[in-house]
Amino acid sequence: MGFKVCVAGATGNVGRTMIQILEERNFPVDRLRLLASSRSVGKKLTFRGQEIAVEELTLSSFEKGEIVLSSPGGSVSKWYAPSAAKAGALVIDNTSAFRMEKNVPLVVPEVNPQEAFNHEGIIANPNCSTIQMVVVMKPLHDAARIERVVVSTYQAVSGAGIAAITELADQSKAILENREYAPKVFPHQIAFNCIPQIPQKNAFGQNFYSEEEIKMVNETKKIMKDDSIRVTATTVRVPVFTGHSESVNIETSRKLTREQAIDILSKAPGVTVMDDPAAQIYPLASIAEGKNTTFVGRIREDISHKSALDMWIVSDNLRKGAALNAVQIAELFIK
Amino acid sequence: MGFKVCVAGATGNVGRTMIQILEERNFPVDRLRLLASSRSVGKKLTFRGQEIAVEELTLSSFEKGEIVLSSPGGSVSKWYAPSAAKAGALVIDNTSAFRMEKNVPLVVPEVNPQEAFNHEGIIANPNCSTIQMVVVMKPLHDAARIERVVVSTYQAVSGAGIAAITELADQSKAILENREYAPKVFPHQIAFNCIPQIPQKNAFGQNFYSEEEIKMVNETKKIMKDDSIRVTATTVRVPVFTGHSESVNIETSRKLTREQAIDILSKAPGVTVMDDPAAQIYPLASIAEGKNTTFVGRIREDISHKSALDMWIVSDNLRKGAALNAVQIAELFIK
Repeated sequence: MGFKVCVAGATGNVGRTMIQILEERNFPVDRLRLLASSRSVGKKLTFRGQEIAVEELTLSSFEKGEIVLSSPGGSVSKWYAPSAAKAGALVIDNTSAFRMEKNVPLVVPEVNPQEAFNHEGIIANPNCSTIQMVVVMKPLHDAARIERVVVSTYQAVSGAGIAAITELADQSKAILENREYAPKVFPHQIAFNCIPQIPQKNAFGQNFYSEEEIKMVNETKKIMKDDSIRVTATTVRVPVFTGHSESVNIETSRKLTREQAIDILSKAPGVTVMDDPAAQIYPLASIAEGKNTTFVGRIREDISHKSALDMWIVSDNLRKGAALNAVQIAELFIK
Repeated sequence: MGFKVCVAGATGNVGRTMIQILEERNFPVDRLRLLASSRSVGKKLTFRGQEIAVEELTLSSFEKGEIVLSSPGGSVSKWYAPSAAKAGALVIDNTSAFRMEKNVPLVVPEVNPQEAFNHEGIIANPNCSTIQMVVVMKPLHDAARIERVVVSTYQAVSGAGIAAITELADQSKAILENREYAPKVFPHQIAFNCIPQIPQKNAFGQNFYSEEEIKMVNETKKIMKDDSIRVTATTVRVPVFTGHSESVNIETSRKLTREQAIDILSKAPGVTVMDDPAAQIYPLASIAEGKNTTFVGRIREDISHKSALDMWIVSDNLRKGAALNAVQIAELFIK
């Protein structure tokens, strides 16, 4: 006996990856429906060798017991997810629409799986850059209580949609051929450049943090269930197709040596330690792309602080950062 | 009356930029000689509309009173610079060969110009990523004493030489055309990727910091003449041709507001505040390329600390990070 599963926002980067991961992980699917906006109706996507036509996402699309893997964009989720939940479906939503709502659990299965069961029909999938960071933070927090985090991100464009991938490719080609290519998706040239603004649409708070930066601050506290963890973040878009990298400085209440941290992280679920710099081995976006694990390396005792660690965390932003984490949440309900 | 000037390592990215900047700034040059390895002898480069042939750099190349702008690579500098100094020339060396030596001043003209005059024939130009950071740090340190810095860099490939520029261009093109392109200069794919190792040749210390990271730690203390400033750095190569970006977290002994920091930095020499995120205005490598100033923006009061600031610092690594700073040091001797 399997589940009725539905992918909402099926034609986007994350939606397509959700379909792929359901197949890869042999998720017990009895029936798969693919939903998207009216523009995509009739498009066909393949699941387990069969073509499935995309249907329009409407308020009456959902039924009791259905699992909805959702990544249609924040405003669409806000519009349809409460109706879906009311109809008895379980919406696992990848957008930021519900993440900070009190009655919506924000779940990373390696960190706080138990929270998933306190849902009222909607479970939120955290922000991509937060997920890969907390997977690594959790075991360190359990060992030595994390007090403060200073993170700078190197984020791939695929998190910004299919048009963003096209823009990076086409703009890179244009620049290499000495042609002009005006930015459409991003506020500035992304090819051969770094843009310290995520999301690309204008969204800075009163404290001058970007929306993405505030997500990293607030979601970390909610997922880790510890408001005492202080976080500052600078989130930056870099010309990489897929795979977010993060330079993370973690201050702990008691000192962890490099060896202790490596030992702890080697045993951590969902984490792969890749740390032999003398052999030029450390995590890279090019290695993480298409993988399900979160890589950590360049682990060092911070020489500027009595008890802090520097590290470099890389994961596939469409997989662990989005689609995989959502499917893993769904898997909690199989058991 | 002008100077006899010599550019050592004239055919490299930095050497070529030195020639350009001597011309742009009307440096009083009576005679310009261009030196490089035997491989480059006979190549011609243009200065003030005239072609100058490259001569071989030898131990007897130098004469009394000559100003040598030097960027031939660390081992070459180590070999020839002491002879040049002995002959009475003044070597302003861009390599890391002499930077931490006691009798060699390490100078950023906006920060510690007076040090330049304590030389014994060699003055060191700091590392590119350090220069742009200390230009911004100095006025903040004077105002509120900096206690700790956590910096993550986004460094362009041009600092790694002309072959590195070619590799990024050709590898980007290959990937866009679905062709293989094995790395030659960098240890891994640099196109559409981020590599947390600088320099590209293997050089990690016992504390697992890379050579570039240790440079940022040690050079900052020496230039700022303050060993109490604690620094940790993670230095990362990104697929950008020219322009280093840095995400910098600065803890100060007393709180500076965003407005105070902007006010201080607006008056700082060599610094341009570019900070209106709501209008999508912040520093970018694409803007900094070809400019002589160091841009700073995304200035924020760090919400994770009682007295810290986050900021984003960008400058042209071949100019302020190398050639311009060297010419500015030479200019101290005109006055």
